[in-house]
Amino acid sequence: MAHNIAVIGGDGIGPDVTAEAIKVIEAAGVEISTTDFDLGGQRYLRDGEILSDETLDQLRAFDCILLGAVGTPDVPPGVIERGLLLKMRFDLDLYINQRPFVGTAPGGSEPHDFVVIRENTEGPYVGEGGSLRTGTPHEVATQGSFNTRHGVERCIRYAFELAQSRPRKHLTLVHKTNVLQFAGSLWERTFNEVAAEFPDVDTAYNHVDAACIFFVTDPHRYDVIVTDNLFGDILTDLGGAVSGGIGLASSANLNPDRTAPSMFEPVHGSAPDIAGQNKANPTAAILSAALMLDFLGETDAAARIRAACAEPVTGSTTDVGDAIAARVRG
Amino acid sequence: MAHNIAVIGGDGIGPDVTAEAIKVIEAAGVEISTTDFDLGGQRYLRDGEILSDETLDQLRAFDCILLGAVGTPDVPPGVIERGLLLKMRFDLDLYINQRPFVGTAPGGSEPHDFVVIRENTEGPYVGEGGSLRTGTPHEVATQGSFNTRHGVERCIRYAFELAQSRPRKHLTLVHKTNVLQFAGSLWERTFNEVAAEFPDVDTAYNHVDAACIFFVTDPHRYDVIVTDNLFGDILTDLGGAVSGGIGLASSANLNPDRTAPSMFEPVHGSAPDIAGQNKANPTAAILSAALMLDFLGETDAAARIRAACAEPVTGSTTDVGDAIAARVRG
Ligand SMILES: CC(C)[C@H](C(=O)O)[C@@H](O)C(=O)O
Ligand SMILES: CC(C)[C@H](C(=O)O)[C@@H](O)C(=O)O
Repeated sequence: MAHNIAVIGGDGIGPDVTAEAIKVIEAAGVEISTTDFDLGGQRYLRDGEILSDETLDQLRAFDCILLGAVGTPDVPPGVIERGLLLKMRFDLDLYINQRPFVGTAPGGSEPHDFVVIRENTEGPYVGEGGSLRTGTPHEVATQGSFNTRHGVERCIRYAFELAQSRPRKHLTLVHKTNVLQFAGSLWERTFNEVAAEFPDVDTAYNHVDAACIFFVTDPHRYDVIVTDNLFGDILTDLGGAVSGGIGLASSANLNPDRTAPSMFEPVHGSAPDIAGQNKANPTAAILSAALMLDFLGETDAAARIRAACAEPVTGSTTDVGDAIAARVRG
Repeated sequence: MAHNIAVIGGDGIGPDVTAEAIKVIEAAGVEISTTDFDLGGQRYLRDGEILSDETLDQLRAFDCILLGAVGTPDVPPGVIERGLLLKMRFDLDLYINQRPFVGTAPGGSEPHDFVVIRENTEGPYVGEGGSLRTGTPHEVATQGSFNTRHGVERCIRYAFELAQSRPRKHLTLVHKTNVLQFAGSLWERTFNEVAAEFPDVDTAYNHVDAACIFFVTDPHRYDVIVTDNLFGDILTDLGGAVSGGIGLASSANLNPDRTAPSMFEPVHGSAPDIAGQNKANPTAAILSAALMLDFLGETDAAARIRAACAEPVTGSTTDVGDAIAARVRG
């Protein structure tokens, strides 16, 4: 039976890269039935819809969602990102943001292979806060980070399970416990308690600033990393930069309980400056499709796609998609 | 007249690196009179003092404070950092954290020379928040970021003045306006308003995640960066990693209004694993002393020290200090 995939190409280079991802899935012989959803900044400018409750309900009927990128220069930063991307993450309870990194850091010699598990429904992303006396010399603006034992624990537990399934069985918590004492303490205590259930997993802790150094100087020390929403955002862009470029960075926004469809998207943005020029590298979208196939149980096809992406291809968006599709066909 | 310097060696490698910094200042012929303050984790373990109001009042009488590093494994993370380091930054109103970076990124070819201006008295560092039902499955922990027009504006204004004084006259704001809408909006509006007063300074904006990528792939795009307290913490460790290592990263915690002494410290921590082994690189502390001399008006000596550090020296802590002192003596 064909998997039902909702495709949100989005803005800028988004639709171009999802097209190549679908081409490669089909080349892998996986039966999918796709339905396009025209959402993103351009759609918003046309008729004001960002992501209505009706559309969200329609999306719930699909097995998975494949997203390209959203955001357009004509809409103030954040409107589409918060109203569409974050709304899906929050309302579909996609509480795991999983981002794998394989590569060798610039100037380095030892290859690395690690995964960042980013909490995806809490932290400084909840939109809590406000401003007082806005626009005056006395303005005060606050921005809150909310963290629950429930939210932190399910994320940490997922990360321990993933670490346990990998050969090295190593998990690093990244936070800033020496400064963010309330949020940090919850993360640290929960991490230590869950760790007791996984005696075969080795653990470590790094402050986020130290982790940024290690991403550059010593990324092979990492196997699985678990961290909060904002630190995960920062670390995964940096992870892309030290793993062959953000053009290769894939991600899965997972609802591991499968109470709603999971969403798969490249880490990169909509890159409006190169949109429609057939220039964007679709590899991150193709690797995101591989993560989707894993989640759908199509692990053989996923592995073949990953293998086909291992050797870099250069060229136009469609050239790269064609070349990877050809390799996948074998 | 000799400059009166309070010296807080601190913990771990801290006292070793401040000793070399003082050696080099003396080699530069600048007259200083130093007073040691025994503060840090070891002092706390001995008699419970972290930084009393009395001690803080004594510190106020000095022209500047030179600090090595604080924090020791026997004290829970944060106790000393918050009680000593952050307390000084907040109570002495050291609202600018200035961190210069000169180098070539690993694997890169083009050298960079940029300065990060980190807001040092607000943001997620204020310690706001709490936890509810702590230690239960229903725990909720919050952590607030507080940002005032006053605090943001004086920091941004300082950054514009610095950018205006440099040949490239370029200033980049780094934040996460697409997600942290209240804090981000205050930063962005203030930045744009102050920019109107500096028409000769070119400006740019990067989200923090994108800035992390550029630090690795393209750091020479930056001249001066201004950012909030937490993003500044992250970016400056990363800045160290792409500029020859954190062992070279210096910093100035400035009260530009001179209503209290400014404080100068290397970006690195106390590195307890190599403490007392004469192994730590004192260059970051020596370069921090150069920033101090600049602030004291001893710009010739500061320039000579910086020149002496430009060519890397290897060896033990004292070897490196001796070699740099010899170069400074000429
Ligand atoms: C577009 C933006 C809201 C998003 C985020 O901050 O999570 C992006 O940077 C990402 O990493 O998926
Ligand atoms: C020690 C710690 C509190 C401090 C910070 O987070 O500011 C340090 O990392 C720094 O960058 O000076």
